Amino acid sequence: MLETIHHDGIHELRLARPPVNALDPALARQLREAVESAPARGARALLLSGQPGMFSAGLDVPALLTLDRGAFRVFWADFFGLCAALARSPVPVAAAITGHSPAGGAVLAILCDYRVMAAGEYRIGLNEVQVGLLVPECIQAAFRRLVGARQAERLLVTGAMLEPQAAHAIGFVDELAGPDEVVGRARDWLDALLQLPPHAVAATRRLARADLAGLFAEPEKLPIEDFLDGWFAPETQAVLHGLVARLKSKSAPTRPAM
Amino acid sequence: MLETIHHDGIHELRLARPPVNALDPALARQLREAVESAPARGARALLLSGQPGMFSAGLDVPALLTLDRGAFRVFWADFFGLCAALARSPVPVAAAITGHSPAGGAVLAILCDYRVMAAGEYRIGLNEVQVGLLVPECIQAAFRRLVGARQAERLLVTGAMLEPQAAHAIGFVDELAGPDEVVGRARDWLDALLQLPPHAVAATRRLARADLAGLFAEPEKLPIEDFLDGWFAPETQAVLHGLVARLKSKSAPTRPAM
Amino acid sequence: MLETIHHDGIHELRLARPPVNALDPALARQLREAVESAPARGARALLLSGQPGMFSAGLDVPALLTLDRGAFRVFWADFFGLCAALARSPVPVAAAITGHSPAGGAVLAILCDYRVMAAGEYRIGLNEVQVGLLVPECIQAAFRRLVGARQAERLLVTGAMLEPQAAHAIGFVDELAGPDEVVGRARDWLDALLQLPPHAVAATRRLARADLAGLFAEPEKLPIEDFLDGWFAPETQAVLHGLVARLKSKSAPTRPAM
Repeated sequence: MLETIHHDGIHELRLARPPVNALDPALARQLREAVESAPARGARALLLSGQPGMFSAGLDVPALLTLDRGAFRVFWADFFGLCAALARSPVPVAAAITGHSPAGGAVLAILCDYRVMAAGEYRIGLNEVQVGLLVPECIQAAFRRLVGARQAERLLVTGAMLEPQAAHAIGFVDELAGPDEVVGRARDWLDALLQLPPHAVAATRRLARADLAGLFAEPEKLPIEDFLDGWFAPETQAVLHGLVARLKSKSAPTRPAM
Repeated sequence: MLETIHHDGIHELRLARPPVNALDPALARQLREAVESAPARGARALLLSGQPGMFSAGLDVPALLTLDRGAFRVFWADFFGLCAALARSPVPVAAAITGHSPAGGAVLAILCDYRVMAAGEYRIGLNEVQVGLLVPECIQAAFRRLVGARQAERLLVTGAMLEPQAAHAIGFVDELAGPDEVVGRARDWLDALLQLPPHAVAATRRLARADLAGLFAEPEKLPIEDFLDGWFAPETQAVLHGLVARLKSKSAPTRPAM
Repeated sequence: MLETIHHDGIHELRLARPPVNALDPALARQLREAVESAPARGARALLLSGQPGMFSAGLDVPALLTLDRGAFRVFWADFFGLCAALARSPVPVAAAITGHSPAGGAVLAILCDYRVMAAGEYRIGLNEVQVGLLVPECIQAAFRRLVGARQAERLLVTGAMLEPQAAHAIGFVDELAGPDEVVGRARDWLDALLQLPPHAVAATRRLARADLAGLFAEPEKLPIEDFLDGWFAPETQAVLHGLVARLKSKSAPTRPAM
């Protein structure tokens, strides 16, 4: 469900969990461990990619609805751990957003150093509110530093999904590329970075991303129980079960799960 | 001077104080109480609107110049109380900026969740410096989160008034509409919000607007006496009296008072 | 190496150190003293300008490489002192960016109230990382408030140099003008500001720039030793000596030194 491809010092982590690269407990764990261990395995940079047309549909709601609170807590600790590993990565990370990227898919992209998105009929957005979920403050703050407080508020409160051009116009993504060129452009950006004096780049990144790293500095203070309370609240459960019922009746493999 | 129109759960508060919807002590008090009491009266959302061509000219300078320090303090406590009620509103508030919106008119709009402005020969801006007044830090900070620190500094220091297109381009307002459609578009935005899972919207708004609410969290710490010192300073009084003399000689009913 | 031209209350400080207005210890000291003493000499506003085609190439790397740690510390204290004097200036400062403005040249511009840049084949950017240097946090934070956290991170980490149009589009500069009109436009902006009620402008500037002034509030806490450590680190010295060797072989007088 996760392929690693080595391009010299750049390690590409390619999500490969059909049909929509949804994050279930196993994938969240695997991706977290891959990001955390990459520098020790020789990665000088990371590239996070998906499948043509689908970066990641975010949380695997049907699978996660079967978990009790204890099992969900383990999953969520892995997801926050993955977020922290991206936000605090000692090596630069580029996201090749190869297609749709709702909710959790957008979260992963937001935490990277650079985002290239495929131009086309794809959407990106933090649409959690649409399915009754709250985006935690650490993610909201990471989003705010990309698009500013006004856009973040507006997009989060309405759960808006944006076309690539609109996302690019407000700084949600840094670059657009043809679907076949998304991974290549993300590699180009990392390649150029790796040509620069390494100590200066590392020290500059540390300062420029210190606010982002700080959001995830104390894992034990992240609002895990708050999110669990929200997940198991009646309103949320009703919306999520309704969503799963609609997904089953449509059986639309490319539809974002969350 | 203030009309309330009920559109199901959306309560529209329409400023109706001829000729320019200027805020005098009575209107500031009435609007403050209307915003504060709206949720208890069943409002699920608020819509703040004005008259065709004039949202609000801001402070009623001629009326306020007749007040002594004690009476001005009462007015200013109501104006800050109104600002706090908008910034901390438990229900979403949209502004239908139906026309000119200088100074205090712009302040009210800035504190709302969403701003639709009438396209046309109207202007919006925090032009207080032009009449010798200082925009307090809590308002400057609210403006900064909309347009960023650079634009806020530039616009505040020069007291610039902007055309709707320019205001939209920098995020001062969120949407432009024909003069006849401004109120309708603001209602549409609120209607769409009211279709979403209510607990998730409320919790998301709370986080996304926490910085704004925080600016007005401690009313007793707001710089009321500083503003009074500024208002009664010789430079300010001279500029304001000159402004009133010009207003009387022109008797231009649509001219912004401040 | 520094000419002062009086336009009534506006004092223009024109960098005039051939060939590229590079900052060596003498110019940094002279410019610092000129900015610090201007208000006492009657300046109601300052205008910082360069030569046609070259605002300032930033640090004079060939000259500075000859300094030992003690002498470099004196220079760097003057450069930070100059930065602090601009960021905390009691009178408004406009930058007329008459041409190229890399690294230290861009730093000076960032700290001013307003930036007019010459349209043409010029570049501006914080390209320190390209020569192995770290941009200190106080400068990164000043840049962030102009262009936002996302653009600041991206530009600082890659050391990008931008064309005037690109710099203008993201707010790095406030206005573009023909090369012959840059100084005039910066004067116009200051002239308009000087027409406004002076106490209100001064108080508004103080609040609107308080975050910037705060970055330089405690000179003894600025990371001087950190920067010295970076300057004398082997990676940096190797890159800088390589740069000087290339500059000598090209003897290109308009090429940015840093």
